[in-house]
Amino acid sequence: MERKPVIAVVGAGRNIEAAVLSARELGRLIADNGWVLITGGRDAGVMEAANKGAKEAKDSLTIGILPYPAADVSSSVDVAIVTDMGQARNNIIVLSADIVIASGIDGAGTASEVALAIKNGKQVILLDVDDKAREFFSGIDLDRVKVADSPKEAIEMARVLLRARGAEE
Amino acid sequence: MERKPVIAVVGAGRNIEAAVLSARELGRLIADNGWVLITGGRDAGVMEAANKGAKEAKDSLTIGILPYPAADVSSSVDVAIVTDMGQARNNIIVLSADIVIASGIDGAGTASEVALAIKNGKQVILLDVDDKAREFFSGIDLDRVKVADSPKEAIEMARVLLRARGAEE
Amino acid sequence: MERKPVIAVVGAGRNIEAAVLSARELGRLIADNGWVLITGGRDAGVMEAANKGAKEAKDSLTIGILPYPAADVSSSVDVAIVTDMGQARNNIIVLSADIVIASGIDGAGTASEVALAIKNGKQVILLDVDDKAREFFSGIDLDRVKVADSPKEAIEMARVLLRARGAEE
Amino acid sequence: MERKPVIAVVGAGRNIEAAVLSARELGRLIADNGWVLITGGRDAGVMEAANKGAKEAKDSLTIGILPYPAADVSSSVDVAIVTDMGQARNNIIVLSADIVIASGIDGAGTASEVALAIKNGKQVILLDVDDKAREFFSGIDLDRVKVADSPKEAIEMARVLLRARGAEE
Repeated sequence: MERKPVIAVVGAGRNIEAAVLSARELGRLIADNGWVLITGGRDAGVMEAANKGAKEAKDSLTIGILPYPAADVSSSVDVAIVTDMGQARNNIIVLSADIVIASGIDGAGTASEVALAIKNGKQVILLDVDDKAREFFSGIDLDRVKVADSPKEAIEMARVLLRARGAEE
Repeated sequence: MERKPVIAVVGAGRNIEAAVLSARELGRLIADNGWVLITGGRDAGVMEAANKGAKEAKDSLTIGILPYPAADVSSSVDVAIVTDMGQARNNIIVLSADIVIASGIDGAGTASEVALAIKNGKQVILLDVDDKAREFFSGIDLDRVKVADSPKEAIEMARVLLRARGAEE
Repeated sequence: MERKPVIAVVGAGRNIEAAVLSARELGRLIADNGWVLITGGRDAGVMEAANKGAKEAKDSLTIGILPYPAADVSSSVDVAIVTDMGQARNNIIVLSADIVIASGIDGAGTASEVALAIKNGKQVILLDVDDKAREFFSGIDLDRVKVADSPKEAIEMARVLLRARGAEE
Repeated sequence: MERKPVIAVVGAGRNIEAAVLSARELGRLIADNGWVLITGGRDAGVMEAANKGAKEAKDSLTIGILPYPAADVSSSVDVAIVTDMGQARNNIIVLSADIVIASGIDGAGTASEVALAIKNGKQVILLDVDDKAREFFSGIDLDRVKVADSPKEAIEMARVLLRARGAEE
């Protein structure tokens, strides 16, 4: 048995419209590709939207990595992993993903996830980011950070990265 | 959507025959019931056996909570959650489960999982345990610790506990 | 510069009289020896007592490894390390100690600390424990688990273990 | 007893000259003020330099929060807290500090520490940072992010922040 690719979608817990719309489409496309979706699992913002999107596809699998036992879980999460580790759970999200897609970087939580992903050697795709975020993270690691202009392009980039990885193995 | 119950099976990473046979049957029965199996995810001992058992059922879902990125993953794990937290990942296993079943307590790792489960208010079912383990853990919390004589009995106990919880909600 | 030995004192957060009296004496003796005291850091039970005892000596250093930012810190803790990891912080307490002394094992939290200490290859000294705990943990690892009859004996055992370790290096 | 202020110095593990020189001065000034220094604890880059600087003062106290048991500890660390949590230990560094000073943000590890500090509501002082880092992090949270032009200015800012906090309590 080969494990399905796991794609993390990270982003703000607040409802920033562009990021949330993108996250919903990302979730649906990830599930359409037969990949597993992993998020921070809460019933808010990008997390909730990505999980909802995935559930619009059939046969989706959504894993939520929750900060605390009392956190509100998105009702579109299939399996809730309860860490009780607060923001340190961000490290688990990125370590468990083959590729990390950030839908907006409007807050410090998402910035920490992108930074931890790079630090752990993961490929990161930025979507709906402003110039400051793009320049900062590209400056840190140009090889690991890509910028997409749409959810579809982000998913296409992910497909290429997964294929390249498969070819290496 | 309601999330499926999640049952953790914990036990030694070594191949202790009774515990491994029980774990395989536990895994199969958990999957037969439509529950999600969660384990420490490694390709060894009780973890491997429980995941293999689950994969004998159809439509099973197996989640492995791995100690380190470099850990050998059981080939019967569907989704590998990589914690990079060593033994502290035991806390995540038990927090993410509705019920924890220990198949043998022959080592310190499993003892820590049973203790952490009790501490976090989870119900624990002990299987294939000797008198010392039974007496020690029952002495700590008689309400949360049950002892089963067979995998079937453990699963029956789990079903009753899940039903009682559902009735409370 | 050589780092000072670090001794963890673990035990119940409730005020069990024997364990608390022992913890206070342990804390004082640890500080008298010029060793660093590490505990779970909260303002309760064995943790508080050990830290108070250490502060009766001069030149003591007490480190508390706290479960959450909002936890009440013992006023006798010099440096509070805030983990936000709940019970998973128990793994950090034992990993940071050269030797772990359990003053009573009346609850699941302490049981998890003793189990995690053994799992991580640490030496454990049990004090004020009943037969069940003694037999269970000695059964898991006779080489790593010692039983002391008094705080003074526990400290003497710790001194011998530290010396043996120094000789190996 | 009142606990001493704890100041974290974070930065690259590589030997970037400006950041390392600043870190050494920061460490010394922190110790001169009677504050506790907390770092990532390894024998490299900014961590090592800050700890060395602190040890040039008398009565300094240096705490290192190590990623793994096998990590090389700076010989200038007084107490090594061993997390076995890899990069997730960055969350513990910032949670345990009253103020976080970043000496250079040349890598993803430091970026994650600054982001986690902001996310956890800590005040961050950036030193030796380029425009990209300054603009990115100021854009995330202008209230919590300050930029200093020298170690002395960073320490002066820290003193003001500590005083303001003390006045609030």
